[in-house]
Amino acid sequence: MQKRNRRDVVPHPSIETGPMIKHALSVTRQADFAAWYQDVIAEADLAEESGVRGCMVIKPWGYGIWERIQTVMDAAIKDAGVQNAYFPLFIPLSFFEKEADHVDGFAKEMAVVTHHRLIADSKGKLVPDPEAKLEEPLIVRPTSETVIGAAMSRWVQSWRDLPLKVNQWANVVRWEMRTRMFLRTSEFLWQEGHTAHADRDDAMAETLRALEMYRSFAEDVLAMPVIAGEKPENERFPGAVATYSIEAMMQDGKALQAGTSHYLGTGFAEAAGIRYQDRDGGHSLCHTTSWGTSTRMIGGVIMTHGDDDGLRCPPRIAPHQIVIVPMLRDNGEDAAILDYCRDLESRLKALDAFGEPVRVLLDTGANKAQTKRWGWVKKGAPIIVEVGPRDVAGGNVAVIRRDRLYQESGKLNSAFVAKGDFIADAAATLEDIQASLYAEARERLDANIRRDVTDLAAHFSGEDRFVGWAEVQWARPTGGALDRIVEQLKALKLTMRNTPLDAAPADSACIFTGEPAVERVLIGRTY
Amino acid sequence: MQKRNRRDVVPHPSIETGPMIKHALSVTRQADFAAWYQDVIAEADLAEESGVRGCMVIKPWGYGIWERIQTVMDAAIKDAGVQNAYFPLFIPLSFFEKEADHVDGFAKEMAVVTHHRLIADSKGKLVPDPEAKLEEPLIVRPTSETVIGAAMSRWVQSWRDLPLKVNQWANVVRWEMRTRMFLRTSEFLWQEGHTAHADRDDAMAETLRALEMYRSFAEDVLAMPVIAGEKPENERFPGAVATYSIEAMMQDGKALQAGTSHYLGTGFAEAAGIRYQDRDGGHSLCHTTSWGTSTRMIGGVIMTHGDDDGLRCPPRIAPHQIVIVPMLRDNGEDAAILDYCRDLESRLKALDAFGEPVRVLLDTGANKAQTKRWGWVKKGAPIIVEVGPRDVAGGNVAVIRRDRLYQESGKLNSAFVAKGDFIADAAATLEDIQASLYAEARERLDANIRRDVTDLAAHFSGEDRFVGWAEVQWARPTGGALDRIVEQLKALKLTMRNTPLDAAPADSACIFTGEPAVERVLIGRTY
Repeated sequence: MQKRNRRDVVPHPSIETGPMIKHALSVTRQADFAAWYQDVIAEADLAEESGVRGCMVIKPWGYGIWERIQTVMDAAIKDAGVQNAYFPLFIPLSFFEKEADHVDGFAKEMAVVTHHRLIADSKGKLVPDPEAKLEEPLIVRPTSETVIGAAMSRWVQSWRDLPLKVNQWANVVRWEMRTRMFLRTSEFLWQEGHTAHADRDDAMAETLRALEMYRSFAEDVLAMPVIAGEKPENERFPGAVATYSIEAMMQDGKALQAGTSHYLGTGFAEAAGIRYQDRDGGHSLCHTTSWGTSTRMIGGVIMTHGDDDGLRCPPRIAPHQIVIVPMLRDNGEDAAILDYCRDLESRLKALDAFGEPVRVLLDTGANKAQTKRWGWVKKGAPIIVEVGPRDVAGGNVAVIRRDRLYQESGKLNSAFVAKGDFIADAAATLEDIQASLYAEARERLDANIRRDVTDLAAHFSGEDRFVGWAEVQWARPTGGALDRIVEQLKALKLTMRNTPLDAAPADSACIFTGEPAVERVLIGRTY
Repeated sequence: MQKRNRRDVVPHPSIETGPMIKHALSVTRQADFAAWYQDVIAEADLAEESGVRGCMVIKPWGYGIWERIQTVMDAAIKDAGVQNAYFPLFIPLSFFEKEADHVDGFAKEMAVVTHHRLIADSKGKLVPDPEAKLEEPLIVRPTSETVIGAAMSRWVQSWRDLPLKVNQWANVVRWEMRTRMFLRTSEFLWQEGHTAHADRDDAMAETLRALEMYRSFAEDVLAMPVIAGEKPENERFPGAVATYSIEAMMQDGKALQAGTSHYLGTGFAEAAGIRYQDRDGGHSLCHTTSWGTSTRMIGGVIMTHGDDDGLRCPPRIAPHQIVIVPMLRDNGEDAAILDYCRDLESRLKALDAFGEPVRVLLDTGANKAQTKRWGWVKKGAPIIVEVGPRDVAGGNVAVIRRDRLYQESGKLNSAFVAKGDFIADAAATLEDIQASLYAEARERLDANIRRDVTDLAAHFSGEDRFVGWAEVQWARPTGGALDRIVEQLKALKLTMRNTPLDAAPADSACIFTGEPAVERVLIGRTY
């Protein structure tokens, strides 16, 4: 089979326009994807290192994106009949010890609170007060199955209380040795849904409902195409019976797990004592689920839509969808420009896009118009509108669509449009930008999954190795046989991502064992 | 002067109806206010103990109220040009040590993270891994001035960057020995605003703006009248130059500090290095502020509006403003009742109250109608609408206003109204309930502040002591003289709450020292 090279993953059309364009970032995706990622985060003012190990500061533009994600996701969660609640940050060690697989999976990377007071030592330096040592250490929650399970055991008495569906928006901590902003930080923000059901079928339906909610959210809201499927046994959540994920393809071809949904069986219910009396008076254990998405999705958005000029923010999650930049010159024309801009602002704010009022910012900050323009380009505002004295005179505006930043010539793609026409089209333009970003990412994903791979090593090693994903057939071995496959893939820096729900049925031999295959599994490098 | 007795604080008119009514709660305010408070929290399904020391579980109805508080407060914060962001949960000890007064104020009650991994000991029990001890302990944030100050020192370079105004919604931890749900828990949820300004005047204006935002929020949204004023020196936030508060009066006459706003001077800016270059090229320290409100406000709502039947939730923060209870009997009439209720639901949802769509729940749960009715009474849904077969036939609904639960006779006050009339009046009724709850609480507050007190001991001691507040004139002594006053008040279980911004000027002698008074200060018991 012919080997194809890295070029198969095309980050973004603008990359093809090559050296003629001086881009806004100092490093391109092609030159150093990892450095480019950090540069986008810095230049788009999304986040920064905090000086606290493994913890980041999420800056207003980055947090604004998270607020948009929360708003839309929260509505979907509530529509599914799930109620929000809030559970403790701290989990006593004894709660954690109840579910053996769970604690094995998490014990190695948790923040442990051991004292509740500081005291000055003999040199006047503050130290944990030995008199204030906790009898039982507290764990800062890495996830909340145990403490929410304890609450569910109090709340569930009878079949009438089922299904019980709660969600919390919270911070969690998993101690990480190597951190990367948004993708892997010691503290991160997420939502975690937890549900209890009368039987396996109802719990499994909920597990798959949450997975589908995540798939449609990623695709429709983040404009990030994903593959939904079941994780292989070795990638399951600690203590779960089955784990499902959505996997997105970044512009370097690596996979990003962007959301997971777990069917937990009765293991957690047994550990926490979540039992109910059924209609016949008998007592049964509940079947539970949990599902989560996090600020990691923002990393996915950056690596899906970013280009060499910064972030391109999908309109549905852009804190400001349209930014108006008045070109002020500290002279007598400024007042007329500002009046013109304010009228534009209020007319745009009266519009709806995606069923919500359009989010518009008139940027009256102290910086120069040129600085503002490139600031918003780097932040990825979907539409940037510039207004100068000639625009006011002519009744025009100069419009930049962030997803079409350059003309073919390499010149900035700024279009003069009559103000009224711009307003009339604005909502449709936002919807077109959303659709275009999705289509571009979808095309990249579809073009970079190979279904004809028979020799993984030949494809995935060497300088010109394939950087996309392979969908291969396998026999779904377990135990030691699976471990050997995992090791074999690890040598190629590969992992199994998931077994896509919508894959074709198996019709051939397992690529690993030669036995008859039972399903298809996606393989690729990962974050 | 005549002593007046406890009766001066009238919790709520319904208390006067006396023993004829069998109330929904097992304990009345009059019998045991503290036990009543716990009972409301339990019976209204607001929160419960978590099994984790000092941490509570906020249940869906309680969290729904918090979400409403967040939604309305967040809009006010954003309207003031403040941007949300997120800062680390953990604060290195060294950050905290920089501001001496600050650390003195907080060091005694903080959760300290000392390890980042667990390991099995010789008996197989999990313990903090000695190999994974942190070089520098991390504090779980009790408040974020230090870590946000560090970020501000990076973000502020020039006068163009000022004012810098950020806010975060977060959990914080202050180790508390005696906890009480919503009022004092080790972990609680809050918002904390932090701003940096070029000079004192601008910072002080922001401090007072935040205070006024809290005052109007408490009164207009929570229907909880408050007194806004400056805290005396001994009650200042550790490290602040001036601390302001809003103080609400609970039905037992005690004060609840429901929000604070601090002018921090340049102390925190100096500790963190927040400096800016002014228009002339010189470098100056910023003046900073911080201000916060928390889930404690929910405790205030309970003790302001609750009665012997549970919570009465002000409509602006009620997760459901109108609850429809269909009176189903598992027979052939049920379908017609549900159709009738769904039509009612959709017509009510199309209405606006307080500038937002009306929040309506059709309760189709498995419980009996009677159980549902009393469940919603205890939760404090502002309007409960019951629909039975006769209502469907007659085109009526049976309406209960939660703020007027009983007739004078002691009978439940359920009014039959034509469905169309009920819908036509629904928004106005909600607004009337909001106004009535406020008026009732305002009347109680006004009636229970005495301005003619000359002998604190005579008023505030003994079995029939006054349980409201005294507004007295004082000379605002400092240092040792202030300490002696604080001790003297403490012997009477009293504290100084604040010096009301809108108090009359002083015109008499200091009640403590006999010197000429300079202002008036509120004195009372407190939570």
